[in-house]
Parts: sequence; C-alpha cells; structure tokens
Amino acid sequence: MRALTVQPGVANSIQLTEVPPPPQSDGALSVRAVALGICGTDHEIISGEYGWAPAHQQRLILGHESLGTIEEAPAGSGFARGDLVVGVVRRPDPVPCPACAAGEWDMCRNGQYTERGIKERNGYGAEYFRLEPEFAVKVDPRLGMIAVLLEPTSIVAKAWDHIERIGQRTRSWRPRTLLVTGAGPVGLLAALLGKQRGLEIHVLDRNKTGPKPDLVRALGATYHTGPLGSLHTDLVMECTGASEVILDVIERAGPAGIVCLAGVSSGGHKLSVDVGGGNRDMVLENNAVFGSVNANRRHYELAAEALARADKEWLGKLITRRVPLSRWQEAFKRQPDDIKVLVDFSGSA
Amino acid sequence: MRALTVQPGVANSIQLTEVPPPPQSDGALSVRAVALGICGTDHEIISGEYGWAPAHQQRLILGHESLGTIEEAPAGSGFARGDLVVGVVRRPDPVPCPACAAGEWDMCRNGQYTERGIKERNGYGAEYFRLEPEFAVKVDPRLGMIAVLLEPTSIVAKAWDHIERIGQRTRSWRPRTLLVTGAGPVGLLAALLGKQRGLEIHVLDRNKTGPKPDLVRALGATYHTGPLGSLHTDLVMECTGASEVILDVIERAGPAGIVCLAGVSSGGHKLSVDVGGGNRDMVLENNAVFGSVNANRRHYELAAEALARADKEWLGKLITRRVPLSRWQEAFKRQPDDIKVLVDFSGSA
Repeated sequence: MRALTVQPGVANSIQLTEVPPPPQSDGALSVRAVALGICGTDHEIISGEYGWAPAHQQRLILGHESLGTIEEAPAGSGFARGDLVVGVVRRPDPVPCPACAAGEWDMCRNGQYTERGIKERNGYGAEYFRLEPEFAVKVDPRLGMIAVLLEPTSIVAKAWDHIERIGQRTRSWRPRTLLVTGAGPVGLLAALLGKQRGLEIHVLDRNKTGPKPDLVRALGATYHTGPLGSLHTDLVMECTGASEVILDVIERAGPAGIVCLAGVSSGGHKLSVDVGGGNRDMVLENNAVFGSVNANRRHYELAAEALARADKEWLGKLITRRVPLSRWQEAFKRQPDDIKVLVDFSGSA
Repeated sequence: MRALTVQPGVANSIQLTEVPPPPQSDGALSVRAVALGICGTDHEIISGEYGWAPAHQQRLILGHESLGTIEEAPAGSGFARGDLVVGVVRRPDPVPCPACAAGEWDMCRNGQYTERGIKERNGYGAEYFRLEPEFAVKVDPRLGMIAVLLEPTSIVAKAWDHIERIGQRTRSWRPRTLLVTGAGPVGLLAALLGKQRGLEIHVLDRNKTGPKPDLVRALGATYHTGPLGSLHTDLVMECTGASEVILDVIERAGPAGIVCLAGVSSGGHKLSVDVGGGNRDMVLENNAVFGSVNANRRHYELAAEALARADKEWLGKLITRRVPLSRWQEAFKRQPDDIKVLVDFSGSA
C-alpha cells in the first residue's frame, strides 16, 4: 500500500512510498483511509524540526488527523464494516504514568507517551491503517468527509473542558465574552464551541478578506484584524503561538479571566517584558493562564457531539482544499487562504 | 479611643491619633482589639503608594489583620461577650457584582469592593472596632494571640482551594511536591498547609540563618537559599513577587504543574523573556499559572480549621515581635529576622 512517509529530523524527506500493510499489532480494527487532515505539527515534522520514527526504523508514516471506514472488525468490538471512524492520536507508555493509567494520556506526566504519525508510532497517512477499538471513535456518518475535523475539534474540546473546570474554582463563574486569537482550524473550532455555549465572540487574525473573516462573521462573531483597543474578555483562547499576541492577550483577560494557551510556538525570540506588572495584575485580578495540548477519549467524544450539533455547511467551509492522494505534494504547499487542507484518500484504494 | 491612622497617598503620615468610637454602621458586634498583624500592604500604604480613605475623610484607620474579643453582641447574632474573633477584610459593593453577590468578594469582577484598613473603610488598628456578624469569624480560644495569623492563613487557604480545584481538571491529579518561594508569613503558612496535605516541601528564601530556615526545617521541609538546580515540583506557591523568581518558578512546574502567584509585586522593571519558549512549555506540559488574592468567608473558616490543627508552638514562632501599642513606631520599622510583627493592643484599653 502507499503511505506518506518522512525521515524525522531530515528536512523535506516526505515521499509517497510503498510500505507493507499495517501489522496486526496496531490494533484489531482494519480501516481504509478516507481523508487525512494536515496541521502545523505535520509541517514541523516535514521541515525536520519534530517527530520520531518507530524504534529501529528510519521512516515514519506521517499523519494524525484521520478519517476512515472500517473494513474488518472482530465480533464484540463495538464496530462493524462501514463505520466511519477517527483514530485517537496519543497512546500511553506500556508502563503508564498515573495520568495515562487513568485514560488521561493528554495529561501524561513522564513524557513517555507515543503518538500516531508524530512520536514513535506510524500515523494515519496511508491507504490502510489499523486501530485498537479503545482508540477508535465512531463519528456521525452524515458528517462525511467533514468528520476529519474530529481530531482538531478534540483539542478544542479538551481546552473547553479545562476552561470550565478552572472556571469553577469560583461558584459565580458565568463567562460572557471570548477572544480567540488565530482563525486557523483550531481557532475557528474554538469559536464554534464558544458559540455553542452562548458567548459573545471576538476573533483576531491577519487576513482582511477571504474564508477566515467570512467564517467568523457567519458564526455571528466579530472579526478583528487590527489593534484590539480596550477589548477585555472573560476568556481568551490563544491559537497563534506568537509571542507578541500571547503577551497582549494575557493582559486582555478581565477579572477572574482565563487564558487558554493552545498554540505551540517556537522559542528563542526574546521580548522585553514587565514581569512584575503582569504578576501584579494576575494576582489582583485572580487571572489564570494555562496550556492545553492533545486530548483523551472523553474529549474526542465531546468533540463528536459538538460536530454533530454544528451547521454542516459552515463546517464544510473550514476545509478549503481537498487534494487527491495522486497530487499529494500540493497539499503540503501552504496557500494564503488555507484553513484545513486534506489529502483525499477516498479515490485511491 | 486611639487608632493608627494614615493619610493615604502621603508617605509616612502614620500616627497614633485620638478618633471617635466606631460607628454602629460598622456592624452590630463591638470588639476590643487584642492584636494587629502588619503586612506588606500596610507598609505600601504607609509609604503612600496604596490605600484610600473613607469617603469625605482625609485619614484612614490602618490595619486589616485583626484579632479581638467581643465586648457586646446582640442576642441571636451567634456571638457572645468574650468570643475571640477576626474580621474579614473585604466587603462587597452595595450593588454587588455576581461574584460578590454569591459571597465570593475575593473574586470581585468590577473592582468596586471596599476593604477594612485598605480601601475606603476604616481598619482594625484601633482600640475598639465593630463588625457585622457575617464578616466576623470565631477562632479557637486556645490559639490566643496566634489567632491573629487567621487573615494571612485565609489568603493561603484560598490559594490552596484554587490549586485543588484547578488540579481537578485532571482526575488523576495527585501532587507530591511543592516549592514555596519566600519564607514570609504567607510562604510559611503555605508550607504548613502543604504539609497538612502530606506533600514533600521545598522553601526558598535568602536568610541563611535565623527563624525562617529554623521554621522551615521544623516543619520537615527543605530550606534553600541558593540556585535550585534541576528541582521541578508539581506545585509552586510564589510568595516573593520578585520578577526573576516568578520567571524561574514558572519553568520549575513539572508536567500538569500548577503555579500559584500570591505575591503582589510592583511593576515597571523589564526583563528579557523568551515568551515563545515559555508558551511552548506551558502548552506541551499542560501547565497552569494563576493569581490569587484575598479570601472569602469560606476560606477564613478553612483557615481557622488549619490553624486549629497546627502545632501551636510552631505557629507561635511565626510571630517574631509583639510591640505594645505605646511603642507602635517600632512595629513598623522592618528588621532582618522579622516574620510576623504584631502591635499588641491587649494591655492598652
């Protein structure tokens, strides 16, 4: 079968290569790929800055935003041929830390987790892959290819879950306003889940025209490109990872405000910061800032519910390009109006 | 009666002045002062950098860390003559925000709260003061003068309450280690409450000898004065407000770590900071940093329980100087081995 593979640590080593079929040890469910979503982590792996091949192998099958249909499922597995499924990305260490042992591999304490398509496990960017039933999530078949958004939605569902748990440190917590920075897939999905919670939403990004402002406005939210003036919100979902934006939004959280950092940034770029002043504001206003990464099974299930409730037409517009596997190179060339780009495996097998 | 008063905004205006007895409007309970604790906020007010007098008045009665005995209490108030009590510091706005309306004035959203001895309400640094029953907290009479530690303990009880609520964003949260920066009263009380939770505790301060290291070691905790090397802990309670320390401890929180900022710092001092690198670590490790200030009635009650459970001899050593009211000036002159300094009102009335 064909698979998109990379040699981790080597820039631009991505190729469509012929690989053996997935081993039984990857799980009892056999899945035929429908689509693969591409995200910033994939670009980071392709540029050689991130990613690890499985033990004793040189190459890694790329891809963690999966969608496929079940080809074969054992009786009693809870799955049947034809089911539309998404694979969970992270797997706990064989000797799990307390978080992983509790099914909270997203909160792994020892860093010994593995990740499909990222860290020491082959990914989902192949014509066929296998899944363990406990790491497969069924999605509403009416979503069709849109269901490839489940993995990024799971990231957002986790962020929301933590925002709500942190918010409940005070009984009187009733957030009304949300600022989302970055109108990529994670930012737009964060705004969607905020809208489902009845919030007044502001989204900041750079594109003055195109699908990003259109999608924000279609959600009934306010789109900003310029300085945010005196805007303060109860919640901030930071999805850019840009240092200047991060510093700015930490100050924009109102009293008892919560800032969720969800953008993975590169380091090494220093800024001059009034740490004492920032600390004083955080203390006197009871503000909280937290980082959120990955998602566990519960979050995938919350994400599946959120997608099932959402407007399908709006969700469909998040997918700005579907590139057939035969032209896979195009999928990895960034274009200005890209939101979510897919490699379409549906015509390949 | 005599009271310690200041003219807010004017440096070194503190005086022992003759003032009228406290008005009925301050509350139904009449209290004779036993002791007044002095903290950093008092020094800030004395230096003219903070504090607001009551409306239409020039001077403010200083003091918010109270201890007194009830002189008169109405029947049915729940209090009786001779009860040892501490007054809550903050009062909600007459038109309360949703937090204040729920009794969570520590999480006030609109900043319209007032504070005894700090913001627009006379404080407890007087021979007599009055309290509303709902803002008076009874303390174990066996604590005696040590009970003046209730207010700083309430700050710490709130911080712990929030740490635990934030920690429970993950079901598998079982913190084992705590770093406290700053061995002042708040830091030492934070360490005490950590010890009551069975944690391994590290405390950082500058004094190489004296009561601070002695008190830390007597608690069974490790005292550090120098660089912390590779120390990482599940929890950090930051009580110095020093910019360099704040930046350092944010990096010392392990995976799923929580940093509570409890030190009020002055701003204006800029540092060169790798914001992107810090953001990346916070995201990939699911770390949380939050500020905590003040305390509501529930926290005073938690604090009263914590003090009642603690070793009285150890608590007593936190009070390093008791200065009689007649020599009040000495109480406000800082000395190197000061932890908690009291003005002793017990022999005055």
